[in-house]
Amino acid sequence: MTLQDELIAAIRNIPDYPKPGIMFRDITTLLGNPRAFRRAVDELVHPYAGTGIAQVVGIEARGFILGGAMAHQLSSGFIPIRKKGKLPRETVSIAYSLEYGVDEMEVHKDALKPGDKVILVDDLIATGGTAVAAANLIRQLGADIAAACFVIDLPELGGRAKLEALGVEVRTLVSYPGH
Amino acid sequence: MTLQDELIAAIRNIPDYPKPGIMFRDITTLLGNPRAFRRAVDELVHPYAGTGIAQVVGIEARGFILGGAMAHQLSSGFIPIRKKGKLPRETVSIAYSLEYGVDEMEVHKDALKPGDKVILVDDLIATGGTAVAAANLIRQLGADIAAACFVIDLPELGGRAKLEALGVEVRTLVSYPGH
Repeated sequence: MTLQDELIAAIRNIPDYPKPGIMFRDITTLLGNPRAFRRAVDELVHPYAGTGIAQVVGIEARGFILGGAMAHQLSSGFIPIRKKGKLPRETVSIAYSLEYGVDEMEVHKDALKPGDKVILVDDLIATGGTAVAAANLIRQLGADIAAACFVIDLPELGGRAKLEALGVEVRTLVSYPGH
Repeated sequence: MTLQDELIAAIRNIPDYPKPGIMFRDITTLLGNPRAFRRAVDELVHPYAGTGIAQVVGIEARGFILGGAMAHQLSSGFIPIRKKGKLPRETVSIAYSLEYGVDEMEVHKDALKPGDKVILVDDLIATGGTAVAAANLIRQLGADIAAACFVIDLPELGGRAKLEALGVEVRTLVSYPGH
């Protein structure tokens, strides 16, 4: 079985969630599958092993699970991008659009240094609202994004293209055309 | 430098946060320190390597970072315990007390099978409110808790003792007497 087939088999599809017409791709079954989880993490990081990645930056909350594993595997550090109000020290923050309204995410101001090579990670790239905001936050601190990694790509929602237009290399493992 | 000294040096102490008189132990600086993060994860899991751990169960959100790394290192799966309303399929949930009021956490009903050997993980054990609730949730699904792992123990707040009274083996790396 190819890696892509194995990951697709491990992802659960939930029709009409969170609302009618939406097919939700539930990654929890992949995370709970020891072989699929291991293969996904290893496949996401292997191009970057030994390339001097200082930090893996994960987006709350599912990006923490993959990002923790990726950072450990690369022997890099892990930096959380969190929802507003969860980090104890001085932060930089950025607003981003949700389907209804606006939210804010933030990172510790001293978490990244200018020139740090980092990988950004989340479970899924859809419209790219959170990923683009996270990339801008990382660049505000002067760090250099070696890649943005996601297990799942929903390419027709345009997020991947938005990140690439910003000059960010995007790595994904499974793509659902038409989502 | 001993592991404990290295971890203590990597944890940031923030006086009077979130309120006067509290010394907050900020683990983000440990996570962002490649060597300390790697050593903490490896030290938490090494007694359980090769013992048939099926799943690492992490508590949202900081437990996801450590738990993802631990699951990958053990080649087990990862199961998230999340705040109410974040999981797409049928869940079991449990209420737990916060300093002001009550909250609820939940896990997918099909995430664990009776007899599964699991490790529960969070960054810190204080009063044990969330950890005890998480342990009860895991047992509700019939799984067997091989250990509950935390980087930081604040023993005078009693959480460790509460877990041990439930028959849960507790593993911690750094202890702050008097917190």
